[in-house]
Amino acid sequence: MRPNKAKSIIENLLAKGGIQINGDNPWDIQVHNEKLFGRMLAEGSLGFGEAYMDGWWDVEQLDEFFYKLYKFNLRDEVGGTWKEALILLQSKVLNMQTRLRSKKVAREHYDLGNDLYMSFLDPYNQYTCGYFKDTEDLNVAQEQKLELICKKLQLSEKDRVLDIGCGWGGFAKYAAGRYGCQVTGITISDQQYQYAKEDCAGLPVTILKKDYRDLEGTFDKVLICGMIEHVGYKNYRQIMEIVYRCLEDDGLFLLHTIGSNTSEIYGDPWVLKYIFPNSMLPSVKQIATASEGLFVMEDWHNFGPYYVKTLKAWFHNFDASWEKLSASYDERFYRMWKYYLHCFMGPFRTRVIQLWQVVLSKGGVPGGYIAAR
Amino acid sequence: MRPNKAKSIIENLLAKGGIQINGDNPWDIQVHNEKLFGRMLAEGSLGFGEAYMDGWWDVEQLDEFFYKLYKFNLRDEVGGTWKEALILLQSKVLNMQTRLRSKKVAREHYDLGNDLYMSFLDPYNQYTCGYFKDTEDLNVAQEQKLELICKKLQLSEKDRVLDIGCGWGGFAKYAAGRYGCQVTGITISDQQYQYAKEDCAGLPVTILKKDYRDLEGTFDKVLICGMIEHVGYKNYRQIMEIVYRCLEDDGLFLLHTIGSNTSEIYGDPWVLKYIFPNSMLPSVKQIATASEGLFVMEDWHNFGPYYVKTLKAWFHNFDASWEKLSASYDERFYRMWKYYLHCFMGPFRTRVIQLWQVVLSKGGVPGGYIAAR
Repeated sequence: MRPNKAKSIIENLLAKGGIQINGDNPWDIQVHNEKLFGRMLAEGSLGFGEAYMDGWWDVEQLDEFFYKLYKFNLRDEVGGTWKEALILLQSKVLNMQTRLRSKKVAREHYDLGNDLYMSFLDPYNQYTCGYFKDTEDLNVAQEQKLELICKKLQLSEKDRVLDIGCGWGGFAKYAAGRYGCQVTGITISDQQYQYAKEDCAGLPVTILKKDYRDLEGTFDKVLICGMIEHVGYKNYRQIMEIVYRCLEDDGLFLLHTIGSNTSEIYGDPWVLKYIFPNSMLPSVKQIATASEGLFVMEDWHNFGPYYVKTLKAWFHNFDASWEKLSASYDERFYRMWKYYLHCFMGPFRTRVIQLWQVVLSKGGVPGGYIAAR
Repeated sequence: MRPNKAKSIIENLLAKGGIQINGDNPWDIQVHNEKLFGRMLAEGSLGFGEAYMDGWWDVEQLDEFFYKLYKFNLRDEVGGTWKEALILLQSKVLNMQTRLRSKKVAREHYDLGNDLYMSFLDPYNQYTCGYFKDTEDLNVAQEQKLELICKKLQLSEKDRVLDIGCGWGGFAKYAAGRYGCQVTGITISDQQYQYAKEDCAGLPVTILKKDYRDLEGTFDKVLICGMIEHVGYKNYRQIMEIVYRCLEDDGLFLLHTIGSNTSEIYGDPWVLKYIFPNSMLPSVKQIATASEGLFVMEDWHNFGPYYVKTLKAWFHNFDASWEKLSASYDERFYRMWKYYLHCFMGPFRTRVIQLWQVVLSKGGVPGGYIAAR
């Protein structure tokens, strides 16, 4: 294809979303390398993201740009390259989230460096959506999220709580500290394991480096917060069965996850390569299918738009910390991280993806369950 | 099978649930005809219910009896007769809820007589679960349910509201009266149509005798309350598509329905024959599958246990009105209605079935949706 032809195709596509090439609006893209258009057509969202990392294009308001991109479904129109076909094929044929493959995301994402994460997260190191009810402050929103989870799980000091995918131990610290319950947190990330162990010292908290498939024992309450996104559709039923086995009959299970409006079996190619290897977002249907016959669905809460505020706050903090971080991370990393935090704002703002908290019980709470909000 | 053999099988089954034959507890059944046991084995739940109508057995506390029956899953153990197999086969091969077949439930249930329904329902004639939040009074609970629906639909006087399966017009009357919105209600029952038209006179309400498949026009809000239970699993996708077509892009859709923990494709044989022909309860998975790609799931509220209180209040009112009603209905009808209202208490109390209000929007409410409770 002649370069001019590629440019004209992309120009027409972007125009549908009200985005101009080298235009004056803050959401218009400024192209520094004309090879961008051919790369976009050949490599779809993967090439587009990589071109940003390489400095081939820029935009003043990355969030507005992604909002317009998703609002007009432009991603669907440029999608469908052979690399996406390969990911789809792999996802159908292989289990991309076996014990071994699961370690990839731990190694490549969560072990990037605690200095990086602590530079933009709140004091409880919550790397999931905050609950921005009546606040615009990230730290308040994350404490509110933790409190909401504790209330929905109806925690008391008698409870033994299992936190599958415990991150840097923020929930364990909060729940054990405020409610006096015993928390067992598991992670497969070395960095998270070390950090969480130290940060929860002196509290009734046990942090284990363990795959969820190796869980033993029973608990009164189970939390999975921001971890099922790494489990993969082929393993949704298995993880539900494991939680069922680990939960006392009168226990409660809270699942906090990003969700997709439609049932997909693979994630975005750029996100898969640079941010979350082997990740994908479940749909209502996939969660319902995986939990059917095991759990009673007590409540399903959706607060996806709060993720826009969460991501904005994270980028603000990351950007403000860049001078210090730049000793350990290069400019291409900065552009990658900026692109990552912004590219998720679009689908949350346009409601293409959601944030769910689902409360499940084993046989139904006698007399009914009233969910905190 | 020898009669004694049948009795001993049933005796052992009931004993698992703590129920004795001719025992002294108020939940023990008193058998007046020994042929009951053979009939239960041959005809399952259908024969058991018919035997009650025929006066072959009695029980002091029918609600406690059904609670114990469901708590120990006895129904699953006695199920599986050839009549159930026939219903299953019909359900797979035929569409039991075509336009023509749908009229059966209207004719045989909803047209039984307005005097009957008005004898036990609240002043708004709500024949669905009340919202017993901080109250034990049916009339208060039904007004609270109507108010909850209006709040969740964010009604204002500018709204044109469609109520699919409007019953005796109670919601239309409440919403038009309190919020000043225009309500179009549709029903396929003659008796409901006549009653609703008269009861809503003078309000901005239009009642139409119409099948949902014949709907035209667009609306700001759509309500389906206690009607999808008659639609049948083969038509779930179609009704979702119809609501999608009838709803403005920024509209809201509230689905209020009894739900099943598991995906079934036919209902209970006795209930199908005597109460709700061609009815079945959807699961989370079936609703998610039917709505995927059309709607964003904004909120999923479960208040199933309030149906126990609703059914108790209905029976109390029905029983108190029986002297008057007995002029038009015979003793066998009384036993049938008593059995019907009580046999649903068991699965609601044991959390085998649920009551859901699901709020769906077309493209996601910009900025997010906060559900009233």
